Amino acid sequence: MVILDKLIEQIRQKKSFLCVGLDPDVQKMPVHLFESDDAVFAFNKAIIDATHPFAVAYKPNLAFYEVLGVSGWNSLKKTIDYLNKNHPDIFTIADAKRGDIGNTARMYAHTFFETFGFDAVTVAPYMGRDSVEPFLQFDNKHTILLGLTSNSGADDFQKPNLYKKVMRESQQWQHAERLMYVVGATQAEALTEIRKILPKAFLLIPGIGTQGGSLQEVCRFGLNSDIGLLINASRSILYASNRLDFAEKAAEEASKLQAEMGVFLS
Amino acid sequence: MVILDKLIEQIRQKKSFLCVGLDPDVQKMPVHLFESDDAVFAFNKAIIDATHPFAVAYKPNLAFYEVLGVSGWNSLKKTIDYLNKNHPDIFTIADAKRGDIGNTARMYAHTFFETFGFDAVTVAPYMGRDSVEPFLQFDNKHTILLGLTSNSGADDFQKPNLYKKVMRESQQWQHAERLMYVVGATQAEALTEIRKILPKAFLLIPGIGTQGGSLQEVCRFGLNSDIGLLINASRSILYASNRLDFAEKAAEEASKLQAEMGVFLS
Repeated sequence: MVILDKLIEQIRQKKSFLCVGLDPDVQKMPVHLFESDDAVFAFNKAIIDATHPFAVAYKPNLAFYEVLGVSGWNSLKKTIDYLNKNHPDIFTIADAKRGDIGNTARMYAHTFFETFGFDAVTVAPYMGRDSVEPFLQFDNKHTILLGLTSNSGADDFQKPNLYKKVMRESQQWQHAERLMYVVGATQAEALTEIRKILPKAFLLIPGIGTQGGSLQEVCRFGLNSDIGLLINASRSILYASNRLDFAEKAAEEASKLQAEMGVFLS
Repeated sequence: MVILDKLIEQIRQKKSFLCVGLDPDVQKMPVHLFESDDAVFAFNKAIIDATHPFAVAYKPNLAFYEVLGVSGWNSLKKTIDYLNKNHPDIFTIADAKRGDIGNTARMYAHTFFETFGFDAVTVAPYMGRDSVEPFLQFDNKHTILLGLTSNSGADDFQKPNLYKKVMRESQQWQHAERLMYVVGATQAEALTEIRKILPKAFLLIPGIGTQGGSLQEVCRFGLNSDIGLLINASRSILYASNRLDFAEKAAEEASKLQAEMGVFLS
């Protein structure tokens, strides 16, 4: 079954379009986990086991793994293997924000889609078409282009027009149907215009919670007939508690978000 | 001694502003190296040993290591350790093209500047000021911002105005004196204007050789009083031969480039 159809099915089944950001910060993780050989994987596994009834996607941000050197890279591989084996219907995103010339882009695509086995990878558009198309060549895989991000720096270059140009032009590229886009939850007022450019594309929306974005606003302007949204939450779920009950508290937070999302799906 | 002064001193001493791109492609490397436990490190070490009299900088592109998974990450760490131990005056660049929001950018900066120990890292500007400033906080380290790249996709978003805006605005950021910029050798005609915006900054110039850029053109329009250029060559040096004599042939190629550069330094 095509991965995008699986994603949409999961959304309908779980009444959720929650993506959990797997950003294991060793300074915030429960201390007792460090008795394990691989605390990062132990943390991720417990979070996945507790939250998967409420989530349709998981998104490790590579920075949190790379900062740990070789051992972080190992933990990431174990995490994606665990997801693919135990939850093959769940959509997995490598939040890598890569972007390089053709030959090199092909290597990054191979790394994330094949060596690791992610369903999707985030890519920066600055270097243009030939830096993105190698990712789009992969059948049944998705490329999530940075569009309008949630941080204050979005004002520097993306606004007022560049993000729209990126969205418009990229829709002309080969296999544009494999593109999704990052739009920050703090940018809800731009979603009406974005939906005119991208009526069908899935949008990955970070910035709910800690960064101050509103789920209601995002849904009001961003939903389409396939739902078309993946709302990411990381810190509010992962660090709801830093004690023995962290996974239970994470599930509670994920469940709350699912319930809020469920309203828009009924 | 400040790393930038060391770089300029190396340039004067070696009469070279050559940066060797350490992009080990296992499909092009000499077959006999695979008898080694770590063929990638063996390749890099041989290339460094042979070419360092002609080069002032080395630049591993992360894609070539990540594609090998955990073992590639190991080879990269061994390579940077080898450079820092044996050639502490040589300038080292992690060609990573990262770019993420503040917290995450801080982690990437920590990874490349501290965990690995590179002198510089390439960063994509799409996400704006707060995605770049965490890198600029590191004393005696340099951030090399993508400006006008060498690939055809540079026409899509960077031209005609975005790259100039990126250069102008980033010069207003805190610790802008730690910024350098990527400008493709295929963009020599833009260098006159770029030098008006960035009279002092070092420019990292890929695209000589395989991609068709001209060293003469780049020097004519790009040199400043501190030289201000690092010309990168990868494939033409690394794969000058794929036999037992690969390191010798690599040295010959590097030496040829150094000789061409020496003309501009006398």
